[in-house]
Amino acid sequence: MESFRDVGRRLSNWGRWGPEDRLGTLNHITPERIVAAARAIRTGKLFDLGLKVGSAGIQPAGGARVNPVHLMNITSLDLRGRDDNAVVADDYIFMPLQSVTQWDGLAHFGYDGMFYNGVPAETVTTMNGSTVLSIHQIAAKGVAGRGVLLDVAALKGVERLPRAYSITPDELDAAEARQGIKVGPGDIVLVRTGWIRHFTVDGSTAAYWDGAAGLGLACAQWLHARDVAAVCSDNWGIETKDPTRNDGLPLHAVLIRDMGMTLGEILDLDALAEDCAADGVWEFFFTAPPLKVVGGVGTPITPLALK
Amino acid sequence: MESFRDVGRRLSNWGRWGPEDRLGTLNHITPERIVAAARAIRTGKLFDLGLKVGSAGIQPAGGARVNPVHLMNITSLDLRGRDDNAVVADDYIFMPLQSVTQWDGLAHFGYDGMFYNGVPAETVTTMNGSTVLSIHQIAAKGVAGRGVLLDVAALKGVERLPRAYSITPDELDAAEARQGIKVGPGDIVLVRTGWIRHFTVDGSTAAYWDGAAGLGLACAQWLHARDVAAVCSDNWGIETKDPTRNDGLPLHAVLIRDMGMTLGEILDLDALAEDCAADGVWEFFFTAPPLKVVGGVGTPITPLALK
Amino acid sequence: MESFRDVGRRLSNWGRWGPEDRLGTLNHITPERIVAAARAIRTGKLFDLGLKVGSAGIQPAGGARVNPVHLMNITSLDLRGRDDNAVVADDYIFMPLQSVTQWDGLAHFGYDGMFYNGVPAETVTTMNGSTVLSIHQIAAKGVAGRGVLLDVAALKGVERLPRAYSITPDELDAAEARQGIKVGPGDIVLVRTGWIRHFTVDGSTAAYWDGAAGLGLACAQWLHARDVAAVCSDNWGIETKDPTRNDGLPLHAVLIRDMGMTLGEILDLDALAEDCAADGVWEFFFTAPPLKVVGGVGTPITPLALK
Amino acid sequence: MESFRDVGRRLSNWGRWGPEDRLGTLNHITPERIVAAARAIRTGKLFDLGLKVGSAGIQPAGGARVNPVHLMNITSLDLRGRDDNAVVADDYIFMPLQSVTQWDGLAHFGYDGMFYNGVPAETVTTMNGSTVLSIHQIAAKGVAGRGVLLDVAALKGVERLPRAYSITPDELDAAEARQGIKVGPGDIVLVRTGWIRHFTVDGSTAAYWDGAAGLGLACAQWLHARDVAAVCSDNWGIETKDPTRNDGLPLHAVLIRDMGMTLGEILDLDALAEDCAADGVWEFFFTAPPLKVVGGVGTPITPLALK
Repeated sequence: MESFRDVGRRLSNWGRWGPEDRLGTLNHITPERIVAAARAIRTGKLFDLGLKVGSAGIQPAGGARVNPVHLMNITSLDLRGRDDNAVVADDYIFMPLQSVTQWDGLAHFGYDGMFYNGVPAETVTTMNGSTVLSIHQIAAKGVAGRGVLLDVAALKGVERLPRAYSITPDELDAAEARQGIKVGPGDIVLVRTGWIRHFTVDGSTAAYWDGAAGLGLACAQWLHARDVAAVCSDNWGIETKDPTRNDGLPLHAVLIRDMGMTLGEILDLDALAEDCAADGVWEFFFTAPPLKVVGGVGTPITPLALK
Repeated sequence: MESFRDVGRRLSNWGRWGPEDRLGTLNHITPERIVAAARAIRTGKLFDLGLKVGSAGIQPAGGARVNPVHLMNITSLDLRGRDDNAVVADDYIFMPLQSVTQWDGLAHFGYDGMFYNGVPAETVTTMNGSTVLSIHQIAAKGVAGRGVLLDVAALKGVERLPRAYSITPDELDAAEARQGIKVGPGDIVLVRTGWIRHFTVDGSTAAYWDGAAGLGLACAQWLHARDVAAVCSDNWGIETKDPTRNDGLPLHAVLIRDMGMTLGEILDLDALAEDCAADGVWEFFFTAPPLKVVGGVGTPITPLALK
Repeated sequence: MESFRDVGRRLSNWGRWGPEDRLGTLNHITPERIVAAARAIRTGKLFDLGLKVGSAGIQPAGGARVNPVHLMNITSLDLRGRDDNAVVADDYIFMPLQSVTQWDGLAHFGYDGMFYNGVPAETVTTMNGSTVLSIHQIAAKGVAGRGVLLDVAALKGVERLPRAYSITPDELDAAEARQGIKVGPGDIVLVRTGWIRHFTVDGSTAAYWDGAAGLGLACAQWLHARDVAAVCSDNWGIETKDPTRNDGLPLHAVLIRDMGMTLGEILDLDALAEDCAADGVWEFFFTAPPLKVVGGVGTPITPLALK
Repeated sequence: MESFRDVGRRLSNWGRWGPEDRLGTLNHITPERIVAAARAIRTGKLFDLGLKVGSAGIQPAGGARVNPVHLMNITSLDLRGRDDNAVVADDYIFMPLQSVTQWDGLAHFGYDGMFYNGVPAETVTTMNGSTVLSIHQIAAKGVAGRGVLLDVAALKGVERLPRAYSITPDELDAAEARQGIKVGPGDIVLVRTGWIRHFTVDGSTAAYWDGAAGLGLACAQWLHARDVAAVCSDNWGIETKDPTRNDGLPLHAVLIRDMGMTLGEILDLDALAEDCAADGVWEFFFTAPPLKVVGGVGTPITPLALK
């Protein structure tokens, strides 16, 4: 079986958009494709695909990422005696940038000492974060374009795919066929596994993080062949994960590091999927601008799908 | 002269969208208007209107809001000896939610013990933030719709309007006439004053926060009459501010509390303005989804304008 | 049965050290008593009574207080190419001030709208914290003086007292008699219940916070009669707590608000207790200076006992 | 002139207390010396040598270390409707561990890839901080022992020594002679330069951090010969610093890395010095327990001097 390094070498986009490129497959999003994507806004329905940001979040107890902590800095207690009798409120947040619905930036994951486009691991420092592939740069692309939802859970006739389920390229083709849509260049693909229902329906953060259903490594080829701009899912790492196997995150390795693909994780796709099933329209205008953190390797997002 | 309380009473939207409404003038954004707004995407040009998020930000030394502090949680130092030789990076942020380009939520400002729609000041608590008007709720609207830029600095023939300059409704009309555009129901209006150049061009946070050029109180009537959904500007409070006068923020009071208008502050409008001047097109699709902070009273944003 | 309000009224120290007093029973610590306390240092043995500060701390999942988050700001990654080839490391912390071994300050707890000495509840604001009873002021007392350990668990012949066990004044007398020591004016009393072993031995934060063994309300009288300067314990609130009863924290109310007593919580007293049992000496020099947080209502501490 | 590497090699304490030692010169503090030190408590006077912790702190604008940010988590706004009518307040802090009066731990500074006792630089990771020389371990020593103040500013007849003033070993001898005291094994030496008056008297953080008066490199030999346990000062780095010279921090290198000495920085010694000058007694019991941060490389402290 082909190792992830072999797959990565085969699908590598290094140099494809020049030696200084910092955007990877987001380059597939072009002005023409944005214009075309805008035509997908036909009814004005808007779907917010992000989780709430707060202490009751999806992060499990005891992990390296805590749930966001929201603290107030000004409340009505601070305003006594103002002439205008104003009431002001102000607030702070402390959070891991990847603790909620998020983009993984291109400096989030690499291997063998390098990130996408041959950028050395040492370009991420403790003080400055990512000095070359900082997430704030993707704001130049928005991210905005045509989104396509592929509902693999529905394809398989289940509410959620089982733990360690590995989606194949054939199943992506089958989802397309079933839905009557075709993923093309510059699209942002949203793969629904139903995995997030462990949290959104059952309220279990432990179950959510105990492995995952998701894309198998072979899907890298599929995403590459279609010139996909970015891939999102409702699981936490796009890819399948068997918690009993210590095999890392091979699809992360290939997608982020070799192909330069920005990954959208922990999206709640259920309401959107229901609507798409109802009207038979699986495309939409998708936008999820990053928080422009200088040096950031990830960013919380509130992705929007507009139909 | 009419007090801000009188203006507020006259322009009040309390009850207009029901006693339980939490969105205020964002209700002017309708599906139909979103569809119409999408037609403004004609060339696929994308403008990111947000400042970078980091320690070299716009917050002045010694203020109640510090600049964002970005800290790494995982770097290459943490990954020695992994089988897959992976390089992983992860990060945290600590920041005031209103320290960069931002939305002021409807629980950010009120007076006489109440916020928009009669919500009591006490609904904002220290532990829970805003329990009724939490900013995360505006994600249901996106915020997305037609944006219109009114370049008042250009109208007056200056790079930036002077400190304490108070823009009048007539000048908004004049800007429309000069640009050949008309603000209508559900639009998001972006008022360019040039004030942010104190920071973006001169690098002075002190000058930026020492008063401001902006809308005069009388503009509340104009925004109300046009059924504007939200208003944004490149200054820090939408409104004019004379630092030598202790007169509070009367336009905040009327817009946020009485009209229920979400305000977008500290946007960098210069590149967009230049493009609009060049092609004569001053409308665009505008989107700026909030960070969905539960209890939040403000949110950092990366607003996008798509033409 | 006497209500906590009645007890508090009877034992009130309001005005005892003047209307402007901010230190309460710490005033019992006098220079003479510090000199006398120093004589308790006879062997030079030092006991650190504090828990470690970090993510694997005693705070339970999902509580209002998270465990401390320690983040690096500078590591060796940041120092490449320095002339002196220096290696520098720097770090940050984000933590609730009362998440580890701690002092409860006099602005941490009150009732009926007032803190100690009639200070209004409104003197604690969201922006400024405690503007009158800020914890930093206790640094003027150190806190340093004679410490006396009363091992009630040992008195009862158990490793730890059971949940909701309520220690009586008679038991404090009996512990003194058993140990051959007498608590006197200006002493800091450390009451060992063994309760912390739920965390330190069993590793269960849930069990630790599910009620507690501790002092009964009647002990307020005992502490008052002895002119105790401060009281510490290995539980989280000094007092007994039956998790099935919704009766608040009545001893907190009387000790902190009426008597003005600073409380030391979550101390690990096991090693000290073992040593005291071995040599029969239950007194020591005790010191636990606060972090001087301006406006702080609590402070993490590393209490030291020197014998 | 001898390089700092040569000095360090000559004065190295590596291996002196075993290959696994993590405490360095704090090992000079022995039980006997603690007992002797306690005898310095003669009058019961207590001096708090720490700065306040808060947003109006000593950190300059724009530095890598921000001033501490104190935020409330519970105030009276959160307690409405409790049966006991309780008033509770709780708070958080976000701060660099070395932003106020502090200990530099042994993992704060090294060179040529190593910290004290040959511990590799890589033992400090971004996620875990210092895995070998973590600051929490010094709590085992307290730090507590005999403190001796050497007032070099007074020796030179000035309120504060000038910028880049380099104190010599002869001046330390002269300060001893003038004061009639002799520094010996296990002592904690406090060197007063008056430098902190740039902040405490003049309120200028910029002047405070623009170089410093402090110990010259030659003083390492003096501290070594006397078997000093730790050295503190009112400047920010113990050592002299000429801001116009790019010569690093050579005394840091020798003291922390080669000798294994914990450094106490940013102490306010003025009140203590005044008292010592008045009564002619320059020794005292000194204690400054660390915050026991797991992985910490520094710690804020509130040092106490008891006479």
